[in-house]
Amino acid sequence: MTESIFMDNAATTRTDPEVIAAMQPYGNEKFGSPATLYALGSEAKSAIDGARQNLADLIGADPREIFFTSGATESNNWAIKGVADALESRGKHIITNEAEHHSILMPCRYLEKKGWEVTYLQVDGDGLVDPEAVIKAMRDDTVLVTMVHGNHEIGTIQPIAEIGAAARARKVPFHVNSAQAVGHIPVDVDELSCDLLTVSGHKFHGPKGVGALYVRRGVRITPLLLGGGQERKRRAGTHNVPGIVGLGKAAELARNRLDKEPARLAELRDYIIDSIENNMEDIRLNGHRTKRLPNNVNFSFDGIEGESIMLSLSYPTSRDKKPIYVSTGSACVSGTLEPSHILLALGVPVELAHGSVRVSLSRENTREDADSFLSALYEVVERLRSMSPVYKRGSKKCASGSGSDGCDCEAAT
Amino acid sequence: MTESIFMDNAATTRTDPEVIAAMQPYGNEKFGSPATLYALGSEAKSAIDGARQNLADLIGADPREIFFTSGATESNNWAIKGVADALESRGKHIITNEAEHHSILMPCRYLEKKGWEVTYLQVDGDGLVDPEAVIKAMRDDTVLVTMVHGNHEIGTIQPIAEIGAAARARKVPFHVNSAQAVGHIPVDVDELSCDLLTVSGHKFHGPKGVGALYVRRGVRITPLLLGGGQERKRRAGTHNVPGIVGLGKAAELARNRLDKEPARLAELRDYIIDSIENNMEDIRLNGHRTKRLPNNVNFSFDGIEGESIMLSLSYPTSRDKKPIYVSTGSACVSGTLEPSHILLALGVPVELAHGSVRVSLSRENTREDADSFLSALYEVVERLRSMSPVYKRGSKKCASGSGSDGCDCEAAT
Repeated sequence: MTESIFMDNAATTRTDPEVIAAMQPYGNEKFGSPATLYALGSEAKSAIDGARQNLADLIGADPREIFFTSGATESNNWAIKGVADALESRGKHIITNEAEHHSILMPCRYLEKKGWEVTYLQVDGDGLVDPEAVIKAMRDDTVLVTMVHGNHEIGTIQPIAEIGAAARARKVPFHVNSAQAVGHIPVDVDELSCDLLTVSGHKFHGPKGVGALYVRRGVRITPLLLGGGQERKRRAGTHNVPGIVGLGKAAELARNRLDKEPARLAELRDYIIDSIENNMEDIRLNGHRTKRLPNNVNFSFDGIEGESIMLSLSYPTSRDKKPIYVSTGSACVSGTLEPSHILLALGVPVELAHGSVRVSLSRENTREDADSFLSALYEVVERLRSMSPVYKRGSKKCASGSGSDGCDCEAAT
Repeated sequence: MTESIFMDNAATTRTDPEVIAAMQPYGNEKFGSPATLYALGSEAKSAIDGARQNLADLIGADPREIFFTSGATESNNWAIKGVADALESRGKHIITNEAEHHSILMPCRYLEKKGWEVTYLQVDGDGLVDPEAVIKAMRDDTVLVTMVHGNHEIGTIQPIAEIGAAARARKVPFHVNSAQAVGHIPVDVDELSCDLLTVSGHKFHGPKGVGALYVRRGVRITPLLLGGGQERKRRAGTHNVPGIVGLGKAAELARNRLDKEPARLAELRDYIIDSIENNMEDIRLNGHRTKRLPNNVNFSFDGIEGESIMLSLSYPTSRDKKPIYVSTGSACVSGTLEPSHILLALGVPVELAHGSVRVSLSRENTREDADSFLSALYEVVERLRSMSPVYKRGSKKCASGSGSDGCDCEAAT
């Protein structure tokens, strides 16, 4: 395989070699099920106990509050459906926001069909939820507030601690989808005042197919997967021992880097943002400039398709250039070309939403990667715009009308 | 680690080295998400397409009818809750049997709390469901029949094809939990007339944390995990690429062995059964003698605890003996010591149910393993019985009263 530059770490990350090494014995050698009482089972049980401690340490939880799942989608579905089910007699109202991940929105829509009411709070032009809006939206029959921690597409970090304090004041359970934040920035469940928190293994160099849901002691939640007595009877199914061990190792590695890595990434992120803003025109930075995941860059480019940029970067025209992997909010796994609901929620015009590119960094990315990406981006955008039938230089439409994002706002309608 | 003899393969199996080798590139090198459009994503997509084909080939399905999950528990929960949800307007009645796995019984009990009615058919002394009983139990409002293929504890193989034909005649969707059968005996979804079928990876030398649900085209089922558009919009969440690749490899390896391995195992199984019956007294074979998974042996031993036998075998008193890993139906993951609900359903008296031991074989087990197990078993049972305050030679209680299982039935009350 040609060497490449991977900058799509919000989609998935390379599993760390140390994680793979930690998992290795649990497939072929120590392959017992932790539910069994003999030695082969006991060593598997010890291994998942260790992983549980590592993950608990990463988010300031008690290990007994960690429940391993198959990933963030299961954790989000479980949190929403499970709390709704357990508290149905108390009320059938849920609060979230319109710019959430599909694994939050779809369970909410499912519950709406079943008679629940869901309030989808608006976000501002940077993607932020106003904690005051949460306070206003809470009712006596509200049984759950669920908010994303760091948005997977635009990187905006919500004021989780404020929202959590507000929810706690009303004794409403508070779920945080922290799939993009855990392992990337310091996360403490007590500081955030959250009752449930979603973790994804493969978003911070752990394995795919494993995640966790933090459930604070005393929070009522109906299991989603019913059966055996695993995970304190809350999540049935034979433990994915290698996956859980890998998640634990990834948590340990991430924790060891939390003192320096977020700052290094934020610097790299801002270098990319500043370079694009200083060298390109008819662009829009999506998401908040500072309240932002340290590894996220998201821009819209007027007059061209994000998918074309993404594909051009990944298949360079010259053999001496490395493929660069980024993503676009305009392409959808379902194959439709609808623009991102998140960008639309920010007020980004449809045409600009189609031209968005997300760059998501990891511990593997260097300044050299950033420079390679930037020079490739300049070239690709220039070439695509030169062929674009719709692009007119200097005509970028600005959503906010403020001109603050460096666009030619005054000229826009 | 001391070399050991692993005979608890119904709990979990050693991941085949070829499976591990097949998975290996997808952690650290080809680590892309199949949902992404660039080359790193495409090669992950190709890999899961190949795995889907391999699994489809193993069970006679079309690859588009294979949906990857996190394991059998998820598949069973999804099948039951998903069909119930999709067909709620047609009716709220489900048919299963009393000797099912907890991942079937618990979702059924959950639905009962929500207003569904569940018929738990009785099984006979061998654990068999009578297809006539299924026919009698079906009603106009029946929306699902779910039956285990091969019972995980006693190995009895249900008359799935007959039950499937009966369900199809009434146009009632039919789900088969084949977690213990797929990869062990030939399984063909058309011959079985089933509409949904559960597969578990780690039960046939695939990895833990991955499984599948076969869903016949046209069968209505609501997704359990909602979110992204993965798995034809039926099972959201980033694909567990290494796990799925491993499951596909395990399917390929199992299919290549299906012509000879089941017969070899059945011979080994019958050798163990015959040896125990010829050499021991006050015992009971649990499960059907011939309609039985080729790798399953389950006996009750009067007057002693299955857990004591299991632990004694796994911690041999002499250093020149290998630990032997088997399981007992009397120990429960929840830590309670309630006897197995499956043995009780067969009519096995509580005392005998407490004294049950399950031996489950795999492709790794040899005649030498069987002989080591048998000589250790004779010794352990003799020793435990000599210390037992309740054991009286020749007093074994027989459930069926037929004497056909070699017990001293006439003398029993």
